[in-house]
Amino acid sequence: MTDMATALNGLDQLAIEVPSWAYGNSGTRFKVFGTPGTPRTIEEKIADAAQVHKLTGLAPAVALHIPWDKVEDYAALDRYAKDLGVGLGTVNSNTFQDDVYKFGSLTHLDAKVRRQAIDHHFECIDVMDATGSRDLKIWLADGTNYPGQGDMRGRQDRLAESLQEIYARLGDNQRLVLEYKFFEPAFYHMDVPDWGTSYAQTLALGEKALVCLDTGHHAPGTNIEFIVAQLLRLGKLGSFDFNSRFYADDDLIVGAADPYQLFRIMYEVIRGDGLGPDSGVALMLDQCHNLEEKIPGQIRSVLNVQEMTARALLVDRVALAEAQNDGDVLGANAIFSDAFYTDVRPALAQWREERGLPGDPLAAFAASGYQKKINDERVGGTQAGWGA
Amino acid sequence: MTDMATALNGLDQLAIEVPSWAYGNSGTRFKVFGTPGTPRTIEEKIADAAQVHKLTGLAPAVALHIPWDKVEDYAALDRYAKDLGVGLGTVNSNTFQDDVYKFGSLTHLDAKVRRQAIDHHFECIDVMDATGSRDLKIWLADGTNYPGQGDMRGRQDRLAESLQEIYARLGDNQRLVLEYKFFEPAFYHMDVPDWGTSYAQTLALGEKALVCLDTGHHAPGTNIEFIVAQLLRLGKLGSFDFNSRFYADDDLIVGAADPYQLFRIMYEVIRGDGLGPDSGVALMLDQCHNLEEKIPGQIRSVLNVQEMTARALLVDRVALAEAQNDGDVLGANAIFSDAFYTDVRPALAQWREERGLPGDPLAAFAASGYQKKINDERVGGTQAGWGA
Amino acid sequence: MTDMATALNGLDQLAIEVPSWAYGNSGTRFKVFGTPGTPRTIEEKIADAAQVHKLTGLAPAVALHIPWDKVEDYAALDRYAKDLGVGLGTVNSNTFQDDVYKFGSLTHLDAKVRRQAIDHHFECIDVMDATGSRDLKIWLADGTNYPGQGDMRGRQDRLAESLQEIYARLGDNQRLVLEYKFFEPAFYHMDVPDWGTSYAQTLALGEKALVCLDTGHHAPGTNIEFIVAQLLRLGKLGSFDFNSRFYADDDLIVGAADPYQLFRIMYEVIRGDGLGPDSGVALMLDQCHNLEEKIPGQIRSVLNVQEMTARALLVDRVALAEAQNDGDVLGANAIFSDAFYTDVRPALAQWREERGLPGDPLAAFAASGYQKKINDERVGGTQAGWGA
Amino acid sequence: MTDMATALNGLDQLAIEVPSWAYGNSGTRFKVFGTPGTPRTIEEKIADAAQVHKLTGLAPAVALHIPWDKVEDYAALDRYAKDLGVGLGTVNSNTFQDDVYKFGSLTHLDAKVRRQAIDHHFECIDVMDATGSRDLKIWLADGTNYPGQGDMRGRQDRLAESLQEIYARLGDNQRLVLEYKFFEPAFYHMDVPDWGTSYAQTLALGEKALVCLDTGHHAPGTNIEFIVAQLLRLGKLGSFDFNSRFYADDDLIVGAADPYQLFRIMYEVIRGDGLGPDSGVALMLDQCHNLEEKIPGQIRSVLNVQEMTARALLVDRVALAEAQNDGDVLGANAIFSDAFYTDVRPALAQWREERGLPGDPLAAFAASGYQKKINDERVGGTQAGWGA
Repeated sequence: MTDMATALNGLDQLAIEVPSWAYGNSGTRFKVFGTPGTPRTIEEKIADAAQVHKLTGLAPAVALHIPWDKVEDYAALDRYAKDLGVGLGTVNSNTFQDDVYKFGSLTHLDAKVRRQAIDHHFECIDVMDATGSRDLKIWLADGTNYPGQGDMRGRQDRLAESLQEIYARLGDNQRLVLEYKFFEPAFYHMDVPDWGTSYAQTLALGEKALVCLDTGHHAPGTNIEFIVAQLLRLGKLGSFDFNSRFYADDDLIVGAADPYQLFRIMYEVIRGDGLGPDSGVALMLDQCHNLEEKIPGQIRSVLNVQEMTARALLVDRVALAEAQNDGDVLGANAIFSDAFYTDVRPALAQWREERGLPGDPLAAFAASGYQKKINDERVGGTQAGWGA
Repeated sequence: MTDMATALNGLDQLAIEVPSWAYGNSGTRFKVFGTPGTPRTIEEKIADAAQVHKLTGLAPAVALHIPWDKVEDYAALDRYAKDLGVGLGTVNSNTFQDDVYKFGSLTHLDAKVRRQAIDHHFECIDVMDATGSRDLKIWLADGTNYPGQGDMRGRQDRLAESLQEIYARLGDNQRLVLEYKFFEPAFYHMDVPDWGTSYAQTLALGEKALVCLDTGHHAPGTNIEFIVAQLLRLGKLGSFDFNSRFYADDDLIVGAADPYQLFRIMYEVIRGDGLGPDSGVALMLDQCHNLEEKIPGQIRSVLNVQEMTARALLVDRVALAEAQNDGDVLGANAIFSDAFYTDVRPALAQWREERGLPGDPLAAFAASGYQKKINDERVGGTQAGWGA
Repeated sequence: MTDMATALNGLDQLAIEVPSWAYGNSGTRFKVFGTPGTPRTIEEKIADAAQVHKLTGLAPAVALHIPWDKVEDYAALDRYAKDLGVGLGTVNSNTFQDDVYKFGSLTHLDAKVRRQAIDHHFECIDVMDATGSRDLKIWLADGTNYPGQGDMRGRQDRLAESLQEIYARLGDNQRLVLEYKFFEPAFYHMDVPDWGTSYAQTLALGEKALVCLDTGHHAPGTNIEFIVAQLLRLGKLGSFDFNSRFYADDDLIVGAADPYQLFRIMYEVIRGDGLGPDSGVALMLDQCHNLEEKIPGQIRSVLNVQEMTARALLVDRVALAEAQNDGDVLGANAIFSDAFYTDVRPALAQWREERGLPGDPLAAFAASGYQKKINDERVGGTQAGWGA
Repeated sequence: MTDMATALNGLDQLAIEVPSWAYGNSGTRFKVFGTPGTPRTIEEKIADAAQVHKLTGLAPAVALHIPWDKVEDYAALDRYAKDLGVGLGTVNSNTFQDDVYKFGSLTHLDAKVRRQAIDHHFECIDVMDATGSRDLKIWLADGTNYPGQGDMRGRQDRLAESLQEIYARLGDNQRLVLEYKFFEPAFYHMDVPDWGTSYAQTLALGEKALVCLDTGHHAPGTNIEFIVAQLLRLGKLGSFDFNSRFYADDDLIVGAADPYQLFRIMYEVIRGDGLGPDSGVALMLDQCHNLEEKIPGQIRSVLNVQEMTARALLVDRVALAEAQNDGDVLGANAIFSDAFYTDVRPALAQWREERGLPGDPLAAFAASGYQKKINDERVGGTQAGWGA
């Protein structure tokens, strides 16, 4: 096994964007539970996100969602964030909450609806220009619920045209990442259901278009780390949306359902040189803290990614290659899983303390009084939720 | 193949309850689209449901959902329904929309919360006493999102105790049906996830406790018709919630995703003497018309059940038994699927006309002007949705 | 709905290759059941396949599997087939039954093993040269059973290199089709698990490399018709392996598990101009008749494809486009599914009789005495199975 | 967290049966790879199994499979095993490899076939009488491949009758455990597909009939630990067949695919007092070492079970109950998963050494020369496989 100190050196490359919407209320179609202290503005969301970074050193950027996070002055918002120690990251578009998008957005049969959806993305690029964000993330709810409801082939062609317009508007240092999803909210077909579709569409666009892989957006049993390896090989992995799942797009805390899977994913990221700012791969969270506390939920999430990255860095790749070369199935698997079975938490606590961070970020947050403070202060107004 | 006339005789046994909530707005966690003409009261919902029965002769009862459909005077509501040609059916409880149920209802660790949930079911039984409904349907959202969050074993014990209290309150002609669901809204474990659990719990209660099978509440690949056959064999199939799915609990129109599966399910219902009022098996719809029109969606649904029942009645069971006895795999399958491949729609149109019903119920609804009328009338007030 | 006569005109385009191995014994890892009359040579397999074509007019070509179907003189084999009224079709390679391929073939770490696997494909191309076959089909069993056992990324690179060598050997009128499979026989990762991988690999090769879609090789819930539409749109759908499934790669008779799905697939084939010899899309069966009789099983299969193609041809695409344009969800779905619900069997019987074929091919086969004849004749020798 | 020493005390309760067939060759329907040193007799299988116990102290019994392991003199076989330090355990019946069972065994329509299958189980009970084995394990391959092929309801009734006959033959200290399986080798329906069916059937038989849970025999996404908890609560969990899976019944090394799941399963075993000889729950392996070495594969498997049991014993159940009581979702999950994330391997090495066992059993096996010895000795004869 690689020695711990060497492995942990690799961790300085690790940075994880947190989403502004994780701090608001979310839920299922059955119920959204409200919680005290929930932010009412993007500023309050950023303030909460800044706590995560302050305590872990892992979350230097906050992803925005337009229109949920619209403000008059993005430059001011950026300064506000920087004052709190964080930056503004990926801009997420939204074409799923307006009535006009009932039957699609970038894929809609009606050119006027497509125009509106394209213009919305132009607006997002304007926000990026103001905030200096690099990435425009497009997740489409487009799809159909019944066979025959739409023409899948024609929708794909219109998607290509719409994306082309958006792509043409990107600046030199800007990128478009296209997310895919197996199902939901559409229940018969999604217009971008799998990595193949996202790959084919972004390949047609050009080098600044890449794939976004959400770890919860696959069919049961899918080997996600294979897709990671493949997209890195093809030079098309733009970003991750991290979360975890037992069944569908459950949006649970990353690593909570199957930590070994997260370890395997991070191993392929490292194997494919996908770690670090120069890799062009953005790591993000996309989760719903339906029942658990939101800020601690986010802290736990970035720590999970860090822990599994550390374990993946422990894999002795030279020894692994030898065992693979020998056809030693059990030996290779043992080298691989030994790294996973190693407890990295004490070493990570030390790593944090060496950097002036609390050894136990969750305990530090609990002790900080921050939650009580916002519970007391954030009374009145409208709590932020998905549509707020 | 059984001749058409004989087969269609069996159809007079067919009656399908429609749910009051199908006429209101529903959607996904991402968006609920509103539609004109949506009912604002239970009376308006019943009026819409009455249209389905008037045009198809298939939907003589409307299932209620408490508290969504609470009224002061249930006897008056019953008279109102009867005046429109329909009756009040199964009463559905709801323990998933109050904040107090965040961590469970009948399974909750806190006796006070369990008390509240049990009392809610007593209230439902009071409603049943007033309406003459036979069945209390219990679907529980109870479960957990993370390993360790709850004690699955203890929750099961508390569920048994809570159900025992509710069961003891049932009148002589009343029944309790316990629905199971694979996942959602809980994402790690559901307290009643499968038919085995519902069977074990209702077996412990007694003869008036039965299982409710929702066709959308199973793991991918589950052979649902086997469960139907098994529950009928065990004398424990109380009711169906019909809908269809491609992925999860999509709540699409029954038969829309896989009509052959619906045919196979209805075949096992017939095979197990589950058709008709004396069988003790209640057929119900439980669907969400997120994108499509609601009344036509319900008409289409009951027609789908009728069509697949008619096809299932066409199976020549004598010939089938012979082929099975001969080990004639292809022959038996052909006898079975020939019935499915037969177009029963012309015969069903005639069947309807013989009974004074429109041959084409959907066309008749479109021509009736009912939708325009309610679009015009139902302005103002709060449109009904799941929580309305 | 399109009128039946017009719809059935489209059927003259339909031709389905049958696999030589379908006539031999197959089974599961638990048991292979033997049957009387099973062929012992490729000539006997072709004779059986010729029965399917003789009785249905749908199966003019027999796919070969090398080395199972190796002979000294392929020109003679081709004449033998032609004398029986059929031709020789796609050549399938096999790199999964030699001990040397235990850890991979085209992806193997050892250059000597890769050399052997590439040379095997050269041999297959030699066979194609002799038989005039157009397509070389490559399905790889390559993959791993345990995390860490292999280096997924490196295997993908070696796969690309090996395929490049094979591709370079293809003649001007020859093509390579690369099949993907979700899992089995490898249980952790497959080297070509999804259409995206097959697309990326064949795109890198060039225009003569295309994707083969086996309908049983997907994750649960996958919308296969979407993939069909997408691959046709991208110009990369080379061929189908038809079969059906309830769970995994069950290799049941095509259309037997979900006829509505087969209908939807054939609709997208038609929608994307994938029907007929000029389309470049080869339709093939790839099934295992474990329990049922083999020749009737094949007859039933090609008839199922024909029936669902006929139903798909009945879809009124003009009316469908209008309903889609109007956002009429139920109307569009009704136009689509009405075609499926229409019984085409009487018209197809007539279609056959007009072409000098028996109206009921299965009855004609039963009456022909062919099965009894081969049961009597084919005694002694080694019955053909997968590895025979 | 519970302290390590206390936790490890619980491990003395742990004993895992190993299956005789794990030491022979197995594979997929595509290929069975042979390996040197493979046993040719049950005596050689027992000798291999004895190595596993000698090096780990965890595997004191070997499960037999009849007829694969038939001998003239079982008392002599038992003495042979005892001389090697192990005992003979569960007797497994086999009704899936004779031609007569093509369409079923205990469920078959033909009374003669059922008679043969019942008699086979009587023979197994005779073996149990001779070996002193407690448990008769029945896994049925019975099922159908096509809708209509069989009458699912009638098959269930015949199954009940057949099991009744077998049950009646059991001695006072003998038990019957009925295993369920989601699919394979049947691809439309299995006659015992889920725990509910096994529960209903064994409940009807009586107290000596229990359920066997094979961890690989569930639908995708199934929460297996819930079933463990439920069966323990119902007093009906008789035994486990341990293995792991990514897709179907992959029969990989237990814990290899999802170690966190194995940890959760062992937690519920402990929670439900299912650990130890007095619990009435037998822990067994049922795996196929297709690619990896067999004896090391078995060693790794029992070590995996031990490691995850040790981690599960570390859960501080008092603190967990408090967090659950407080509705502290993250806190409860952290207490639970902290135990999983703790590296128990050094403590287990010490635990072994204190008991005179090698600290590293796999290294000890490699150093022992046993594999080379059997490779050299076991030449000629027929290597054991599933059907050997």
